[in-house]
Amino acid sequence: MALGEFELISRYFERPTRRAVLGVGDDCALLAPAPGMQLATSVDMLVEGRHFLSTVPADRLGHKSLTVNLSDLAACGAKPIAFTLALSLPAADEKFLEGFARGLFALADRHGCELIGGDTTRGPLTICIGIFGEVPPGMALLRSGAQAGDQLWVSGRLGDARLALEVFRGSLQLPGDQFEQVRPAMELPQPRVELGIALRGIASSAIDVSDGLLGDLGHILHASKVGAVVEADSLPASEVLQLQPTALRHLCTLTGGDDYELLFTAPAAAAEAVRTAAAASGVAVTAIGRIEAASGLRIVDGAGKSIDERHASFDHFRSG
Amino acid sequence: MALGEFELISRYFERPTRRAVLGVGDDCALLAPAPGMQLATSVDMLVEGRHFLSTVPADRLGHKSLTVNLSDLAACGAKPIAFTLALSLPAADEKFLEGFARGLFALADRHGCELIGGDTTRGPLTICIGIFGEVPPGMALLRSGAQAGDQLWVSGRLGDARLALEVFRGSLQLPGDQFEQVRPAMELPQPRVELGIALRGIASSAIDVSDGLLGDLGHILHASKVGAVVEADSLPASEVLQLQPTALRHLCTLTGGDDYELLFTAPAAAAEAVRTAAAASGVAVTAIGRIEAASGLRIVDGAGKSIDERHASFDHFRSG
Repeated sequence: MALGEFELISRYFERPTRRAVLGVGDDCALLAPAPGMQLATSVDMLVEGRHFLSTVPADRLGHKSLTVNLSDLAACGAKPIAFTLALSLPAADEKFLEGFARGLFALADRHGCELIGGDTTRGPLTICIGIFGEVPPGMALLRSGAQAGDQLWVSGRLGDARLALEVFRGSLQLPGDQFEQVRPAMELPQPRVELGIALRGIASSAIDVSDGLLGDLGHILHASKVGAVVEADSLPASEVLQLQPTALRHLCTLTGGDDYELLFTAPAAAAEAVRTAAAASGVAVTAIGRIEAASGLRIVDGAGKSIDERHASFDHFRSG
Repeated sequence: MALGEFELISRYFERPTRRAVLGVGDDCALLAPAPGMQLATSVDMLVEGRHFLSTVPADRLGHKSLTVNLSDLAACGAKPIAFTLALSLPAADEKFLEGFARGLFALADRHGCELIGGDTTRGPLTICIGIFGEVPPGMALLRSGAQAGDQLWVSGRLGDARLALEVFRGSLQLPGDQFEQVRPAMELPQPRVELGIALRGIASSAIDVSDGLLGDLGHILHASKVGAVVEADSLPASEVLQLQPTALRHLCTLTGGDDYELLFTAPAAAAEAVRTAAAASGVAVTAIGRIEAASGLRIVDGAGKSIDERHASFDHFRSG
């Protein structure tokens, strides 16, 4: 990029660090991990046209880009501390940079997560965020801890992001006020950081729902070597989604994607502790099924009858 | 990406971790930093057509992608421990993935640096590596420590990568054997990790030469609030580069880019310690000038006469 573009970028992205020993501006950033804590880290790459629409407002893109990563920390029960940002941009558009930085830092500041380094280059619009959090040894929530008999829980509500995406894609129409109610789920998802931390020592396994409930549950089942039953009609859905035909509602809640809610398991005896943790975090949680020793995933209706076998083969819904 | 593509990618990139608590395969990786050590981290994003040619062999691209990051750790005197890899690929081409992974891991293994996480998506070929190293508190080499009177040093040789690039660009022709001698500097640069660690407590400042000597020296001068004199004819150049016309040699050594050598300063009294550290690391070092209290950058010939004033305005050579 030209010099003027570098200055434009540093204007929006260079901020003093509070906690890191050394932030943006040297060959490396320096972090001093709290004594005894483990460092949790994750990275996500978002590509225009694949992970976000070119029409998304820049501030919402900044927000969502960091949400994807904070949600990974949440799923591990890690406390966010810092992140790096690598950006490939077709041009250093000041309006875009201002908006992107505003949305990004508003969310980062809310979670005490500071930008410590990055890279900027010219190229197709691509956003790569690496995030760092800390967690006491042995306390990280993993995908591999689910046990037969555990209850299956999910935070918040599922499916609104997919419903809004289908409207954007033109495959569905919604009354304007209904669209405005579900659109924030797609563009302004809230990472469940506090809930993830509150579930340390309570949840037996956890993952964040980014590729759709069934696909992500599949990761837990695979890692934990167990099976599960999911009660489709117990899946938490917004009022707008509840108004939709059952097949569409199931599509959105079971396989929607981009939910950024926490899917987790806990022993049945811990149900009250789960509810207390959720209440303390200001997030609703819903019991949606149970873990079974036999492998496989069954989806049942309110009467316990298997429905929609197609969903049971969740591999189809993976996307990258 | 389709499921088959995921499996292809995991075949080449999922390897057991030795040191990390948890590697690829959960929402986050977990690192247990050595007690008392600081964590150095850096990120670089490489875009096809901008940072590398589409014709580069995949194994060399894998090697170079990690070199860029290892070189940042080297410039801080940090010991590599782990890295993350985010890849955007037009397609999951097995031949490409096999070669890329082979080149990447050969270099990673040589430096005890393990892959702990990543992300893969379909999109324009883009490589984003985040790297982690450790360094004792207060021992990191920074850009800001240069003092008036310090000697200015550079490792290895400069300019061959640029010379090879100009041949690739078609702006220059070299006899085949000469081209083969300089091509590895462009495609297989060696990060000076051991030298960076050996210079802890000796060098007063350091940076890696990635954007060209003058541009990167400019970062040290800016951060340290000092000036410098560089003796152009003392810059280390290969036999092939020494055969070129003076103007081309100066262009390549002073502003070439992609050298991945260490540029550092040390008190004159530490010259012997510098040479000992270099010898122990198996890397040549050359004294190329000195730091001055007055701001500005002068380039002089062997007789101390200022040359090529254009180069003194190094801002022109920055590129992103």
